[in-house]
Amino acid sequence: MSRFFSGKYASLKAYVPGEQPQDRKYIKLNTNESPFPPSPIAQRMAREEAGSLELYSDPAQRALREAASQAYGLPAENIVFGNGSDEILSFAFAAFCDEERPAVFADITYGFYRVFAEANRVPWREIPLKEDFSLDAEDYVGAGGTVFIANPNAPTGIALPLSEIERIVAGNPGNVVVIDEAYIDFGGESAVGLIKKYDNLLVVQTFSKSRSLAGGRLGMGFASKEIINDIDTLRFSANPYNVNRMTAAAGVGALADKGYLRFCTERIKATREKTAAALAALGFRLTDSSANFLFAEHKDIGGRELYLALKEKGILIRHFDAPRISERNRITIGSEEEMEAFVAAVAGILEEKRAKKTGEADR
Amino acid sequence: MSRFFSGKYASLKAYVPGEQPQDRKYIKLNTNESPFPPSPIAQRMAREEAGSLELYSDPAQRALREAASQAYGLPAENIVFGNGSDEILSFAFAAFCDEERPAVFADITYGFYRVFAEANRVPWREIPLKEDFSLDAEDYVGAGGTVFIANPNAPTGIALPLSEIERIVAGNPGNVVVIDEAYIDFGGESAVGLIKKYDNLLVVQTFSKSRSLAGGRLGMGFASKEIINDIDTLRFSANPYNVNRMTAAAGVGALADKGYLRFCTERIKATREKTAAALAALGFRLTDSSANFLFAEHKDIGGRELYLALKEKGILIRHFDAPRISERNRITIGSEEEMEAFVAAVAGILEEKRAKKTGEADR
Repeated sequence: MSRFFSGKYASLKAYVPGEQPQDRKYIKLNTNESPFPPSPIAQRMAREEAGSLELYSDPAQRALREAASQAYGLPAENIVFGNGSDEILSFAFAAFCDEERPAVFADITYGFYRVFAEANRVPWREIPLKEDFSLDAEDYVGAGGTVFIANPNAPTGIALPLSEIERIVAGNPGNVVVIDEAYIDFGGESAVGLIKKYDNLLVVQTFSKSRSLAGGRLGMGFASKEIINDIDTLRFSANPYNVNRMTAAAGVGALADKGYLRFCTERIKATREKTAAALAALGFRLTDSSANFLFAEHKDIGGRELYLALKEKGILIRHFDAPRISERNRITIGSEEEMEAFVAAVAGILEEKRAKKTGEADR
Repeated sequence: MSRFFSGKYASLKAYVPGEQPQDRKYIKLNTNESPFPPSPIAQRMAREEAGSLELYSDPAQRALREAASQAYGLPAENIVFGNGSDEILSFAFAAFCDEERPAVFADITYGFYRVFAEANRVPWREIPLKEDFSLDAEDYVGAGGTVFIANPNAPTGIALPLSEIERIVAGNPGNVVVIDEAYIDFGGESAVGLIKKYDNLLVVQTFSKSRSLAGGRLGMGFASKEIINDIDTLRFSANPYNVNRMTAAAGVGALADKGYLRFCTERIKATREKTAAALAALGFRLTDSSANFLFAEHKDIGGRELYLALKEKGILIRHFDAPRISERNRITIGSEEEMEAFVAAVAGILEEKRAKKTGEADR
């Protein structure tokens, strides 16, 4: 910290993204990236822009808004794009939270919500999930603040039915309810259709997971024209050209290529179910995931221990050293081959542990 | 505005970027873009990344920092990259300004400074430039806040000698001095070398102008390790993957291709001098520009009138409807052909105006 850093950020603890060690080649199952490259159409359109980068991107995001309007059947004025969905989420914390309206979110959810609240210096309040990590919609009715819900939730993968989401939106008519649908394409029902009915709903999606554009940085928000305008006011006060030309073009291509989206998500869902069954057969307890990851624990091995043992074998999964979930790990669904290697490695680690225990007992 | 927009932004007026009308093809001399495409190396490297976008970009920005370290002869830990230099500037307003330390900048400078201050809700104070738009370094010694100086300044193009910049940096030991060098490659002396000597200096540059990457979105900051760490704290609290993979690759290529940078800037400087001479011959009064634009006024035609007349002829220049400068226009230096077309159009407009006046006088 420099001697100039403003005291207003004294308590700010930055978000820690999943590790990206460079010491060796890993099977990366720790940041929920897709095992598939972007749509060939998206790739081609991005490449075509590389020769025109001397010109600014369109601050009005016309082509992207038009493409999303086509894909989702909503007017372009109800849509906005960010440099990743994180940017839109950050704008939402800034725009719709203040001393009178704290941010309200679950105790176990996307860890960035707390950081967004601190960085934007708005108060926040956590509501504990139930013992089984499920979310009780009733806890959020009349929440007294701006609600942020990840659906499906991370790192649990558990999805809330659309009827429950609607109950929360309808139950907070005086406050914005933000539904963060980063993983919606892998299961769960999107709330995008509800924005016609509720003026207090903001749905945020990302192109990083189901559309294989994590490294392109693109997120989108759906809401009433007025909420979109508020986000645009902040966007034009921070970075009007927030989405670069190549990514904007890739986004248009990805939105058009619905067949590829379906192909990728179906494959990942099938691999998820296969991997979940294999882990269950090995004695793991799993949440019912509707996302592109699993959330698992095993009575014979600690969460951190399994994470470290796998890292040594060249496989990265995500371990959160946080209350209630430190015995679990979040495992991204990679390719079928990667998941087979992962399951084999886990089986080996459990076997070694068992053998060691037996050996110790025999002494 | 929605009924949910926080009152804290009640007075926020978003930045208005240069217009990008879609109704017809224009000669665009209004947003200081380069007439040259990006370096062929930058283009190739960006294209190569399009197939790997399923993976996040490197939040540690290693390749970019290494390339800039090579290009500028500074340790990588003294460098940070943003999604455009605007992002770094916005972080600087947030990190180093507060109630005790207002932002201090000229009355005529990059219009976004005021917006950054308002959006980050920090107080700000303007110091008027002299009558001839030059900046008196003495006015900034002991400024009592965080200083932001564009050098060369926009929209005037006037550069401050490095000795004067150093005087300001040395004259504010208790506060950060931000030197915004968006246009430094077109003239003027960079303050980057001073960061070894002063721990309160932050130099910000952009890839949007001299490196033809406006549509890629890339900016960089040079400062002490501690100041860079503060910016990284905010970066990791907002958007750790702020620079996408394609742009990061393009940036590495652009930093390596010093010959192309020299070629582009030399050409633009030569065209600037030629255009300035032609405008002076037509009776324009010009500032001494060290940037890739001119700032001109003519006693026979108002700033807004000339802007509108040129727009009708398919040429866009930038008019600012602001005190002290409303009779002037900012004219980006485009290709030689574009500038010849521009000068011819201006001559025609002046001629028509003269003919009309003579006609009126004859009646």
